[in-house]
Amino acid sequence: MDGMNELRKKVNGAIESYLAEKEPAKLYDAVKYLPSAGGKRLRPIIAMLACEAVGGKRENTIPFGVALEIIHTFTLVHDDMMDKDEIRRGMPSVHKKFGEATAILAGDALFAKAFEITTEVKADSDIVQRLVRNLSVMSREICEGQQMDMGFEEADDISEDDFLIMIEKKTAKMFEYAALGGAIIGEGSEAEQKILQDYGRKLGMAFQIWDDCLDVIGKEIGKPVGSDIREGKKTLIFLHAMRESDEKEKLMEHYEIKDMSDDELNDAINILNRAGSLDYAKEKAVKFSTDAREKLRGLKDSNARNMLDEIARFAVEREK
Amino acid sequence: MDGMNELRKKVNGAIESYLAEKEPAKLYDAVKYLPSAGGKRLRPIIAMLACEAVGGKRENTIPFGVALEIIHTFTLVHDDMMDKDEIRRGMPSVHKKFGEATAILAGDALFAKAFEITTEVKADSDIVQRLVRNLSVMSREICEGQQMDMGFEEADDISEDDFLIMIEKKTAKMFEYAALGGAIIGEGSEAEQKILQDYGRKLGMAFQIWDDCLDVIGKEIGKPVGSDIREGKKTLIFLHAMRESDEKEKLMEHYEIKDMSDDELNDAINILNRAGSLDYAKEKAVKFSTDAREKLRGLKDSNARNMLDEIARFAVEREK
Repeated sequence: MDGMNELRKKVNGAIESYLAEKEPAKLYDAVKYLPSAGGKRLRPIIAMLACEAVGGKRENTIPFGVALEIIHTFTLVHDDMMDKDEIRRGMPSVHKKFGEATAILAGDALFAKAFEITTEVKADSDIVQRLVRNLSVMSREICEGQQMDMGFEEADDISEDDFLIMIEKKTAKMFEYAALGGAIIGEGSEAEQKILQDYGRKLGMAFQIWDDCLDVIGKEIGKPVGSDIREGKKTLIFLHAMRESDEKEKLMEHYEIKDMSDDELNDAINILNRAGSLDYAKEKAVKFSTDAREKLRGLKDSNARNMLDEIARFAVEREK
Repeated sequence: MDGMNELRKKVNGAIESYLAEKEPAKLYDAVKYLPSAGGKRLRPIIAMLACEAVGGKRENTIPFGVALEIIHTFTLVHDDMMDKDEIRRGMPSVHKKFGEATAILAGDALFAKAFEITTEVKADSDIVQRLVRNLSVMSREICEGQQMDMGFEEADDISEDDFLIMIEKKTAKMFEYAALGGAIIGEGSEAEQKILQDYGRKLGMAFQIWDDCLDVIGKEIGKPVGSDIREGKKTLIFLHAMRESDEKEKLMEHYEIKDMSDDELNDAINILNRAGSLDYAKEKAVKFSTDAREKLRGLKDSNARNMLDEIARFAVEREK
């Protein structure tokens, strides 16, 4: 998308300059490892555009956006440990590379750093206070989502409602607070703040559900293809199949295998497709994306608004 | 100490009311487990007294003090995982009780909660912003201290200066920011803030060094006696012996044994005593305590100042 690269560059430069600490070297090498590895930088970009869409200066959101990106990274570091994922963005995950003790600590240091950076937002102190509060509540909700997600691994019967609450907490809240934070920093009206908050949450839902679809479609997202299925991860796609498929037992067997062969993986994917489960999840994702885009109509027309619209469209069209 | 119990009760009540979340149950059971298990509550008490000593209302520091105590607890949860310690305050540590994944997450949720609570301090937003900044810098320094501490395990030659920097970051900074935060909330003068900041740091140093002495003296601190020696932990006492003892080789042998017998432990303690290493560390602790108390003379006389003085005296007289 035009303009996105420019924003991404700004974010990358800011991340590098905010993560300037060097000693103890082992700690800060681990701290910088994942934030420096690139990424879409969607959360800070959304904050910038939301700010601009309500008439603020996008530059003013940069410390806040970097804080969001760093909190996002911190959750990846700790989640990879909890989920025993050894690959992240095509590289060894932090605990594989630096050991578990340093990975715990690097995550903690990133989390601390995020709040430190938030206090550097150039805005009135009451705005900074509100941003800190939102980021802390958001982070706690992410923990709740991750705990729910881990609980689902052992649960037999997960309702779609509970699943949606889980991804809302674990993923969508961060998009919600990114857009809301941008609107707060841009001093948008209450109505504008509400619109952007809703936009962000719906976008986050679309994004996460589409991510789960991509795992089945088999495109490259920096993880081995079909890894959710191999890990027995209960996504919206799986939950649909467990309700609708007449090959439930077979599917369940596949999900319970520890080391799945490629043939078994293909068979599982075929079962999901025959039950229409992939299409079902895709439609859900598209619906969230459409809802997000409709919310934006409540804002004045602007280049930033159009870019936010583009992002919501892209969320459910991307192939990686 | 008179009056301390009353303050501790206030803190305990506040901790309970701030940690009111319930779902997901597994997460919040783990979150509350250690904060509810009691403790000296020194950090919030120091914040209250520092505030009162500069003319502020001690109640105003309570959210900040609870945040400090919760950050302290969060570091214990994660440190116990890194150090593979299975006992804390005489109970199974959080990762033993709830599993490693939930322990990582409970620590993260506690950390998030601490910032959330800090935003509830009843003070001008610029004061809250400064408290958030101090707490985040402090937390990062604690991570640096823990990384240094872990690095020392594999290091052959640790200077006393490096050791003191490590405990300053890992332990003393938290006392420093407790006292400084109290002074900030109480709107003390710059000079008063500086005095209390210095007092807190020196108190923290005294406290940690005395803690290391207690491990050798063999009193009850909720951990098995001599556990530092059994774990081969390089304290000030050990570093002194490695400089001064003529039984270095024997001592090093003991420290390198994985499962030490009681006889070997006693022999190691005797070597430390013969080298005068325990006395050396005790004197260091007392010196920090004395320096802390001298700082307080720069403040107006008050009951709160006398209690801070008492705490510094107690830090190097306590038997647990």
